[in-house]
Amino acid sequence: MSLNSFGRVFRFSTWGESHGPAIGAVVDGCPPGLALSEADIQPWLDRRRPGQSRFTTQRREPDEVRILSGVFEGRTTGTPISLMIDNVDQRSKDYQEIAGAYRPGHADFTYQAKYGHRDWRGSGRASARETASRVAAGAVARLVVPEVRIRACLVELGGDTIDRAACDDVEIDRNPFFCPDAGAAARWEGLVDDARKAGSSLGAVVECVATGVPPGWGAPLYAKLDAELAAACMSVNAVKGVEIGAGFGAARLRGEENADAMRAGPDGAPHFLTNHAGGVLGGISTGQPLVVRAAFKPTSSILTPMPTVDQAGAETEIATKGRHDPCVAIRGAPVIEAMVALVLADQKLLHRAQCGGAA
Amino acid sequence: MSLNSFGRVFRFSTWGESHGPAIGAVVDGCPPGLALSEADIQPWLDRRRPGQSRFTTQRREPDEVRILSGVFEGRTTGTPISLMIDNVDQRSKDYQEIAGAYRPGHADFTYQAKYGHRDWRGSGRASARETASRVAAGAVARLVVPEVRIRACLVELGGDTIDRAACDDVEIDRNPFFCPDAGAAARWEGLVDDARKAGSSLGAVVECVATGVPPGWGAPLYAKLDAELAAACMSVNAVKGVEIGAGFGAARLRGEENADAMRAGPDGAPHFLTNHAGGVLGGISTGQPLVVRAAFKPTSSILTPMPTVDQAGAETEIATKGRHDPCVAIRGAPVIEAMVALVLADQKLLHRAQCGGAA
Amino acid sequence: MSLNSFGRVFRFSTWGESHGPAIGAVVDGCPPGLALSEADIQPWLDRRRPGQSRFTTQRREPDEVRILSGVFEGRTTGTPISLMIDNVDQRSKDYQEIAGAYRPGHADFTYQAKYGHRDWRGSGRASARETASRVAAGAVARLVVPEVRIRACLVELGGDTIDRAACDDVEIDRNPFFCPDAGAAARWEGLVDDARKAGSSLGAVVECVATGVPPGWGAPLYAKLDAELAAACMSVNAVKGVEIGAGFGAARLRGEENADAMRAGPDGAPHFLTNHAGGVLGGISTGQPLVVRAAFKPTSSILTPMPTVDQAGAETEIATKGRHDPCVAIRGAPVIEAMVALVLADQKLLHRAQCGGAA
Amino acid sequence: MSLNSFGRVFRFSTWGESHGPAIGAVVDGCPPGLALSEADIQPWLDRRRPGQSRFTTQRREPDEVRILSGVFEGRTTGTPISLMIDNVDQRSKDYQEIAGAYRPGHADFTYQAKYGHRDWRGSGRASARETASRVAAGAVARLVVPEVRIRACLVELGGDTIDRAACDDVEIDRNPFFCPDAGAAARWEGLVDDARKAGSSLGAVVECVATGVPPGWGAPLYAKLDAELAAACMSVNAVKGVEIGAGFGAARLRGEENADAMRAGPDGAPHFLTNHAGGVLGGISTGQPLVVRAAFKPTSSILTPMPTVDQAGAETEIATKGRHDPCVAIRGAPVIEAMVALVLADQKLLHRAQCGGAA
Repeated sequence: MSLNSFGRVFRFSTWGESHGPAIGAVVDGCPPGLALSEADIQPWLDRRRPGQSRFTTQRREPDEVRILSGVFEGRTTGTPISLMIDNVDQRSKDYQEIAGAYRPGHADFTYQAKYGHRDWRGSGRASARETASRVAAGAVARLVVPEVRIRACLVELGGDTIDRAACDDVEIDRNPFFCPDAGAAARWEGLVDDARKAGSSLGAVVECVATGVPPGWGAPLYAKLDAELAAACMSVNAVKGVEIGAGFGAARLRGEENADAMRAGPDGAPHFLTNHAGGVLGGISTGQPLVVRAAFKPTSSILTPMPTVDQAGAETEIATKGRHDPCVAIRGAPVIEAMVALVLADQKLLHRAQCGGAA
Repeated sequence: MSLNSFGRVFRFSTWGESHGPAIGAVVDGCPPGLALSEADIQPWLDRRRPGQSRFTTQRREPDEVRILSGVFEGRTTGTPISLMIDNVDQRSKDYQEIAGAYRPGHADFTYQAKYGHRDWRGSGRASARETASRVAAGAVARLVVPEVRIRACLVELGGDTIDRAACDDVEIDRNPFFCPDAGAAARWEGLVDDARKAGSSLGAVVECVATGVPPGWGAPLYAKLDAELAAACMSVNAVKGVEIGAGFGAARLRGEENADAMRAGPDGAPHFLTNHAGGVLGGISTGQPLVVRAAFKPTSSILTPMPTVDQAGAETEIATKGRHDPCVAIRGAPVIEAMVALVLADQKLLHRAQCGGAA
Repeated sequence: MSLNSFGRVFRFSTWGESHGPAIGAVVDGCPPGLALSEADIQPWLDRRRPGQSRFTTQRREPDEVRILSGVFEGRTTGTPISLMIDNVDQRSKDYQEIAGAYRPGHADFTYQAKYGHRDWRGSGRASARETASRVAAGAVARLVVPEVRIRACLVELGGDTIDRAACDDVEIDRNPFFCPDAGAAARWEGLVDDARKAGSSLGAVVECVATGVPPGWGAPLYAKLDAELAAACMSVNAVKGVEIGAGFGAARLRGEENADAMRAGPDGAPHFLTNHAGGVLGGISTGQPLVVRAAFKPTSSILTPMPTVDQAGAETEIATKGRHDPCVAIRGAPVIEAMVALVLADQKLLHRAQCGGAA
Repeated sequence: MSLNSFGRVFRFSTWGESHGPAIGAVVDGCPPGLALSEADIQPWLDRRRPGQSRFTTQRREPDEVRILSGVFEGRTTGTPISLMIDNVDQRSKDYQEIAGAYRPGHADFTYQAKYGHRDWRGSGRASARETASRVAAGAVARLVVPEVRIRACLVELGGDTIDRAACDDVEIDRNPFFCPDAGAAARWEGLVDDARKAGSSLGAVVECVATGVPPGWGAPLYAKLDAELAAACMSVNAVKGVEIGAGFGAARLRGEENADAMRAGPDGAPHFLTNHAGGVLGGISTGQPLVVRAAFKPTSSILTPMPTVDQAGAETEIATKGRHDPCVAIRGAPVIEAMVALVLADQKLLHRAQCGGAA
């Protein structure tokens, strides 16, 4: 119910603004007895951390997480896990221009319209910086679903798509774009460089695959696994579309093409010949890989001047001088992974609540 | 939290199976004093009702709704509104074959995997019949947001897209496809007829536009208006993708193309030159038309035999003989409208809770 | 979150007014595979049913429950269980006098103040008739916690308390007061008869004991087992106080008297020498019997004329002529049992969600 | 839904253990534009702070609160308000004895039973220290309901009750017991001193009165104002009973005594001649003062040795040497005030959501 919380049984809440003293997440409902220390979280934060290549924002944030509660003698106690990350490298003066005028494509206007008052420093609560809290919470969620492997990558950037035949998962960590296709990654360097130099920005599509999800997670009808994933991904900054499995493409298939035929698998369990469903049927996992894609719009904060209005309603132009990602989707990949982990941890516990099963 | 409930303040729960005695919805949190009778709900149900053309299932359901509570002397009392629709035209024997084998692309297998026990008659709870309850609840929601006009149509069917230049809203009610383009509607007759005769089925894309939403509805970060819409749409049977505004297309735009420039409007309020955002920025409404699209996969229940397994794990073939929509997306248009209405009613009240404003 | 729903994982919602066509409950989150038919619910409803002795209201309601969904071939499917009870014996004309004036001690004024509009027939939603829905839902909850035995009785009526030394559980079903002390039951006949003849009413205290609850159910800090029980009982009509274990009496004990000393039990598990805690410590069950007491005020609807005002604000007198319980607490005993069952079912599943354990 | 969260629209979550680095609360759903700084919160924390008299624990905690988010330029922004209080004066070694054995009357055993692992330092999450977070969140809640005045006091301590005729609200802040009766306060000094010296502890009853609540807050049936208050109070450490208005005493009144007669008030609004209802009828506020009482058991941590068992199940004795309140209810008064404020803020916004009304 809470506006800034997500989840049902395994639940997290985030707080904090881009230029406040810190940001954080509180994870509630975590099973007790899980080994957890900052070292389990930090590597995931590091993957999302800004300033690691010229293709992301140059804001320098160490993003060091501290666990303030919920862990004793190295194991979770079942009580709330409070995670905090200090903000270190704020440059609020970069934003003074936007204090009075609205950046097109950004949340400046809508926050003002809703609340009549907003923290304009670094976009305040609307900053993608909040996603660090999600990644931290997601690292805890991963420990709840050790049977699942979650992997996100970029499959399209600036309209240039990967070649599925040329992909290799090991490439994902070898380039700054989480791109499984080395050739595409090379092309994207040029694309992003050009956009950055032109004071522009690019969009991209992130694909996340979760393997190891057993059949049976999810529930009709408003706690469907795919509905939860859709909400989880759409809540990430800049995401404008979400699809599962064949997604929008499924609308162009015929019934017999789209429906994944089943055969007896080697272990007696049903085996699917294809996975257009993306691992979900009727809102419940099939046991096949879960496949979700999220479309990120290009970063709204750009150097190119754009027509806009100020808070008094007068027409003006605005160019955003703060440090920004030329393609916010790049750092979106670890965020989507985190959101998928958070949904799965919640659904696993929710399934256990209703249907029982092994601890 | 409830698995079969949706919404936060204005909230509805649905119950019922395809071949049980009835289905229903309970609407809670509705403002008091609204004029409400069955006549406010029935027309919306009639738009979704099966058997109205040869392009939808031939199951004959009058779908007559009864209001069992929450209304006194023609006005809502603020207490739960119980809506019930009897099931009239069940033919459970059509389904006996699927009692033992799983239809590919359907929820048969996943329900069995989750619950170990399922109502196979007419797909039970997984039947699209449940969406009648949503439409009934959505009719109540519409009364909560009289300032908003909500209109859904099909913009693509079987891979054939409408011509935006040839569209006219008045066409939507003139053809059995909720299609705004008369030319496309004519072509779709052939497409759907062919698919039906071939024992196949088609997918489609529904677009829903809500005009009149004021700026300020929605909230960061996990109650974002777009996140709620995504969950709402993805929870509808057969939906595999959801996008807002430019959606997946936004991933192919440059920052200056995608960001909707603002100018001073005639009334002093900001005016946007474009609407790539689809009416939502930072999870909060901009005041522009809200634009959401949902991709429906082709109906999974088809006459064409498909390879599958039975509950014992043995390989077999299955052809679904029940009466089914050759393109479930057609009747999906009124359902998506209902879901959008339900999200907006909830968000309006939620906004009023936090930020006040006129009753 | 829903106003008319209760529970977190095992959750029920009720709807319906005293003089509408029916009342009902929707139970969501119920584990699948439980044997369930109307015969499992009806006996509990019968215990609460009015008109069984001269000590309860003379309204004649068969209170026959129908299961409309969520059960297939005699077992729960895991989908929502819709329970409906028709209203049969309404006499709305009895209430026309109260349409315009407020009964002191009743919800007439507050409903009008809140909603500006109310169903005055038989108290509408504020009628104790709604508790039949709770009892029906509670019967389902009992099946979720078969290891627990739940038993409520009246321990005080009209200020006359039972003699604990003279109590025997088998007496509870032998008198119309759910009174474990035969001597007290005999005295209460006179008390209630006198009150009824005088056009007055009496209050009482219900005590509910649940045995078989294992240690570990409940959770800090706002889902505490005792906090949930308090809300559950206080939500029942006419309840004005709730206590656990020694309750208000604990405030008069010294630390060493109140703290229940522990010894090694025969099975190795700790054994408590006393149970002042009433089976809950830190919001979590201890394994001892859970003991909760609820104080019911005297029925507000009485024949004795009372000073009041009408809707226009003018002073008047009112005497309630409808058929009412001279002591609403009597039929409150089965309702408190149901609420305890509902809380325990929810907490059992919630515990299983977070901490795992046997199905 | 969250285990460590409370509220529906105005919602707070707390985290932290007694001997961890800090404790905190996250307040979500707060209206924007409210003036808020640490100075609005600190005075309320100071009233609850330990070590201010010899009648409370001697742990020395400055309890300095910091606001980490949700406030910009001195006003709330509508985003989550993160409040943090550092733990300063831990002496974990005092607790090493209880690491292995269970204190009777305390949560040691139940946490171990539930989670299989617990933070035994200073009682961990079960420590009354957590209530500082509630008081901090409650200070924010007070700003949401400026029309309401909330005042708690002790009306009974160690079985010695106040004389209502001798009470004066101004006395409440003149003695260390929040006692409105100067004579009783003088007697209580002796009672608490004796108990402390004897290594024992005492219970007490806190009464909280909220004036200025308009008619109409609260909602049937499971969001009743009194049900929410009951849960809120019962969730506070050591509370074993809650009552509203005449409470348990109402069970001993006759219908015509208990029902508060109504007359036309000077302003046209109804005026009640008595307030047995404690300001709530049918779960909705009447406009009269809201009266709630909470019974606190005596502190479980006492110096007097008590029979118990250790984690291995062996019988032993335990005396708690940490610094503890001889009567935890004393500092409970500001906590109950905070909980009442938090419930009222939530119910005010929830009422506004459903029924509208002034901002």
